[in-house]
Amino acid sequence: MENHDMKQSKWMWCPGDFELYHGMLVHNRRTQGGVSCPAAGSGPDGDLSLLGPVFYPPMWRVDSPHRNLFLYKVVNLEKPETVTLYANTEHASILADGVRYPAGVAVTLKPGRQMVKVFAYKDGGFPAVYCVGDSFASDETWSYGSFGGADLPAGTNDMYTALSDNPEVFKFSYERISPVTSEKLNGGTLYDFGCERFGKLIFENVTPGDAAFLVVCGESREEALDPKDAIVLVRAQARNGSFVSTSVAFRYIFVPDFGGTYAFSADFEYLPLEDRGAFRCDDDLVNKIWEVSSYTLHLNAREGFFDGIKRDRWVWGGDAYQSFFVNYYLMNDNDIVRRTLRILRGAEPMTMHVNTIPDYTFYWIMSIWEYYYHTGDVSFVRSVYPQMRTTMAFIRGRLDEDGLYVKHPGDWVFVDWSKFDADSGPLCAEQMLLCRAYECMANCAGLLENSEEEAEYRAAAAALCTIVNDRYWDEEKGGFVDDYRTENRNITRHANIFALLYHLTSEERQAKIITHVIKNKEIRPITTPYFEFFELDAMCQIGDFGYMTDMLHSYWGGMIRLGATTIWEEYFPNREGAEHYAMYGRPYGKSLCHAWGASPIYLLGKYALGVRPTSPAYATFEVRPNLMCFGSFSGKVPTPNGTVEVSVSKKDVTVRADVDGGTLVIGERSYPIEKGKTLTVPYGGTGAQA
Amino acid sequence: MENHDMKQSKWMWCPGDFELYHGMLVHNRRTQGGVSCPAAGSGPDGDLSLLGPVFYPPMWRVDSPHRNLFLYKVVNLEKPETVTLYANTEHASILADGVRYPAGVAVTLKPGRQMVKVFAYKDGGFPAVYCVGDSFASDETWSYGSFGGADLPAGTNDMYTALSDNPEVFKFSYERISPVTSEKLNGGTLYDFGCERFGKLIFENVTPGDAAFLVVCGESREEALDPKDAIVLVRAQARNGSFVSTSVAFRYIFVPDFGGTYAFSADFEYLPLEDRGAFRCDDDLVNKIWEVSSYTLHLNAREGFFDGIKRDRWVWGGDAYQSFFVNYYLMNDNDIVRRTLRILRGAEPMTMHVNTIPDYTFYWIMSIWEYYYHTGDVSFVRSVYPQMRTTMAFIRGRLDEDGLYVKHPGDWVFVDWSKFDADSGPLCAEQMLLCRAYECMANCAGLLENSEEEAEYRAAAAALCTIVNDRYWDEEKGGFVDDYRTENRNITRHANIFALLYHLTSEERQAKIITHVIKNKEIRPITTPYFEFFELDAMCQIGDFGYMTDMLHSYWGGMIRLGATTIWEEYFPNREGAEHYAMYGRPYGKSLCHAWGASPIYLLGKYALGVRPTSPAYATFEVRPNLMCFGSFSGKVPTPNGTVEVSVSKKDVTVRADVDGGTLVIGERSYPIEKGKTLTVPYGGTGAQA
Repeated sequence: MENHDMKQSKWMWCPGDFELYHGMLVHNRRTQGGVSCPAAGSGPDGDLSLLGPVFYPPMWRVDSPHRNLFLYKVVNLEKPETVTLYANTEHASILADGVRYPAGVAVTLKPGRQMVKVFAYKDGGFPAVYCVGDSFASDETWSYGSFGGADLPAGTNDMYTALSDNPEVFKFSYERISPVTSEKLNGGTLYDFGCERFGKLIFENVTPGDAAFLVVCGESREEALDPKDAIVLVRAQARNGSFVSTSVAFRYIFVPDFGGTYAFSADFEYLPLEDRGAFRCDDDLVNKIWEVSSYTLHLNAREGFFDGIKRDRWVWGGDAYQSFFVNYYLMNDNDIVRRTLRILRGAEPMTMHVNTIPDYTFYWIMSIWEYYYHTGDVSFVRSVYPQMRTTMAFIRGRLDEDGLYVKHPGDWVFVDWSKFDADSGPLCAEQMLLCRAYECMANCAGLLENSEEEAEYRAAAAALCTIVNDRYWDEEKGGFVDDYRTENRNITRHANIFALLYHLTSEERQAKIITHVIKNKEIRPITTPYFEFFELDAMCQIGDFGYMTDMLHSYWGGMIRLGATTIWEEYFPNREGAEHYAMYGRPYGKSLCHAWGASPIYLLGKYALGVRPTSPAYATFEVRPNLMCFGSFSGKVPTPNGTVEVSVSKKDVTVRADVDGGTLVIGERSYPIEKGKTLTVPYGGTGAQA
Repeated sequence: MENHDMKQSKWMWCPGDFELYHGMLVHNRRTQGGVSCPAAGSGPDGDLSLLGPVFYPPMWRVDSPHRNLFLYKVVNLEKPETVTLYANTEHASILADGVRYPAGVAVTLKPGRQMVKVFAYKDGGFPAVYCVGDSFASDETWSYGSFGGADLPAGTNDMYTALSDNPEVFKFSYERISPVTSEKLNGGTLYDFGCERFGKLIFENVTPGDAAFLVVCGESREEALDPKDAIVLVRAQARNGSFVSTSVAFRYIFVPDFGGTYAFSADFEYLPLEDRGAFRCDDDLVNKIWEVSSYTLHLNAREGFFDGIKRDRWVWGGDAYQSFFVNYYLMNDNDIVRRTLRILRGAEPMTMHVNTIPDYTFYWIMSIWEYYYHTGDVSFVRSVYPQMRTTMAFIRGRLDEDGLYVKHPGDWVFVDWSKFDADSGPLCAEQMLLCRAYECMANCAGLLENSEEEAEYRAAAAALCTIVNDRYWDEEKGGFVDDYRTENRNITRHANIFALLYHLTSEERQAKIITHVIKNKEIRPITTPYFEFFELDAMCQIGDFGYMTDMLHSYWGGMIRLGATTIWEEYFPNREGAEHYAMYGRPYGKSLCHAWGASPIYLLGKYALGVRPTSPAYATFEVRPNLMCFGSFSGKVPTPNGTVEVSVSKKDVTVRADVDGGTLVIGERSYPIEKGKTLTVPYGGTGAQA
């Protein structure tokens, strides 16, 4: 008898719906502590019963998945086979040979050309189906029937392959954790979990069994002890002596006494992403910075890359853009990048920029090319290209007559928390990003062998680049000015950093920018860790590693010395105590676990270990290590098909890669890196293949 | 003390969401009886346990409401006031004076400019909010924040004004009804409710209390007695001795014995729309036709106008187009027209024609202008105009280089269940409808004082009309041919009927069409009641009333004589017995309660009573009665602001209108109709105002 194993099936849905659904949940989960029941005009005056979490959605459109699903597949069967539909909804059917069957029925298909269609509808959650069969086992070889749009491969996710899986529940891992210390004070108990955490608060053996009580979360001790101003409050309502909260960020938890008792612990909720990158040096502070940066990104690596886990817990295009780069040097997980990109873009039609921010829309386009460049995943580019096209149509439908981006009502021209001549005309930094977005769009079109669109976007990039160089360049000042329409001639670092990073001007002008802008202390410094990412990247690119390692020690090191267990949203060395926690006009408004602080991982991997792709998908790559201020270090960098290990001391450099295509570059000398062999060369001199 | 009544609030939602939601439910409710659990390849062989209803969704995209809602209102307050938010979801907040409050909190607003924002999120159903207040009482003076689209008035519906109302539940009326007769046969019991019904089947006192049994619905006795081929099956599953089904269409119900007992009745579900039009004549058959037509439309007048209540229970653009006209002469309910139009159009972006049918998209545009013409409701035109514009962009993005509609993949070029040279080139009838759609679009643009777009569409109509007259007119044959690219010179009635109805050609050519096409028995006759609507309208328009009344007696009368209690989808006089019920390859596939059969109400109102608007919103109207084949008749026609009553005998005509603007026209003579006064004139001669 033939041993016939059934093919592995996957849950299927409308492409993008998994991400739209979980993105929708994510973006509707934010709450803010506040006064729930103010006596007319007056505050709560210490009455905790008046405090509670208030729903706080984003200021952009949150899109949701389809409620109707239609998928089909055509196969020429050589022999009869059966297919059985399963669905997460009672409203589902399968149509084969002109007959419609409900789920759960084994449908026998005759040999010959068979087109099988499945339909499902679900209100709440999203419809998903699963077919057990052979040729018709459900996976991305099925097509999504889009009703007039382009039919695309069915949406699937490798996390959801078992019939018992539920794609409406995101597959986090959980670990039960307990407070490290507890302390009676202020009429309650303060618990400290020892470091930043995210998860569900668990109250068991609660007496009375139906007790209702307030729980105050704090990233800092001060926040947890200040119910009126804490950002995250939980209103516990025990049932049968038990209460489990939704997932929240905390290190400290304060439970005001409510006259009852309970046992308290938490379920730490996380995504078990393996670290494929590493860095360890002889500078303990930098090692600590690397570890804390890694933990910070891990905590924010969830349905997508979050900005921060306490607040906003949202997915922002600029923050995500940076997390992607860190990811390529840390977990190198492709799926979280894809999920994040789909969440950011949302559904058609596009009526507003990503997060309302034009620069974030440009990053979105750029991110896709850079994702391909780092991973080689062309199928994602193909599946998302229709949305890249409508995004470009949206962008280009709002340019001025010269093709420059100009602010429209509802646009938030962000670039950075910095002051620009924002309302004086088209801002230079935006045009720089648009140039780069055109280039990335052209690259993606070329990748998909769409030479017509590649040429179109290449031309758009060239035309815009010319205009930008003509109008914004100030030869006297040696840099690009923010705005060409006014006489302000105001220079900020941002546009000039982009010009360097994305090679948007001549080498001669790049040299001038380095001298007259980047290294010019009279140009207002970058103050946010967000834009510091770009500046440090540019500084390293021009070989000024000292600036980067100084910032590591002072800025990141400053937070570590204050006891930070994760990297903060912002840090001012001159502040003291709880002053550090204030932001956005609230005493604890600042996020103490912000993904954009994790950039040291990217910077050390790319510039200290020196590993970076020199062609898409790491087909070729270079290892150009630099000791910087360190005595020695070692580490590794993941690539799509393997890992590159690098050790550097003042004496020599050792490299080992389990992939082809690498070149070790030391100064003027280059050494081919043979796959699987250890290559050691003098840090200053010649090498020997072992 | 001041007696201060709170302003009446209404539930609010994203404009269109109420209709999208109920349209989504409607379009996902269709099931079809079938074999649920076939033994591999074989039929059920009488095993009822294998039969069940199978989910059967439409072949077009079904859109769903938003899950996030953002509404706002700005008021300059002269004195303080409070506003309290309520929502149908726990995820809701209200933002005023920079502070965010949950639902249920009375928020006090200070005098001065106040912008109040409300946010809500709901997964499943749709988010709806209700504000109790004065200036901020919720209603359509609030704005919907569309995030980049045009901000529109908040969605509301006058059915949902009480805080206890639930807009997720459609407000039907219910009446408990019982079978008229019951009969034991075929191993079960057959119940007859005496006429076509729609509603929930109610089984009470069921023993055993958890009995599971099959229920077979039939519009005909034969269908109910044929479980294997009946269209509508219900799988009853009693709980505690009780089972209530979802709403289904039936006259006959067959319950196979399952070894238990039960009490059986039904809840007749209907919309209590008042008849504002009437017609009664000395011909009892025609009176019966009018009543049965009225009942047929009433049964199909639900969330929107359905095609039929057994199958498909969907909203189709062509069927709805005709129901609108009948509605203007029967219930004159504006809201059902608006709901139907919103359901038909769905959400952005438009990627397929309405129901996949280009003619239905053209009717959709036409319907909006005709709705305004009959009702004067300009605010609806304003609220839907952005979607008219994107619809036009969709249409025009797919025309050929001459501006003619050509079939695209996925388009269903319907026009009628008739054979055209469909694949030979652009079909004439489609161009005729597109011409009319352009005209209606221009009219709506003009109404909204958008003179630029009015001119644009007026020009498009003129250009297309010229091309159609140049290319499709066959002078020798005296009519428009289906296709100009082939040499077929095939003439069908459809395009020529449209040319007459919408005045798309010269009077000289219109006269030729009447002679050489309409009255030419060699041109294949119309065979569907659907297109009979257009033909009879055109025939009456040219004064050939005999054709219409002959059809009434033979076609509609034929069904009545067979005992029809509602008008059928199709009728062939030469068929016998259960042959009448077959359609679409199924023995009971035909709908016996189909809205498009109700056209006699429109035709008799418009051409016998002779009442019709001569300018938008009945500002002026004429009464041009015609006795046709009748000895006498009387009736009434609703207008936006009143009713026009007409009685005609061979001797005289009596008219009474409670609105201004009317003119009675008898042959060559005209008489102004004075509001509120009865005017009687000889049917052939002079009149006297009473």
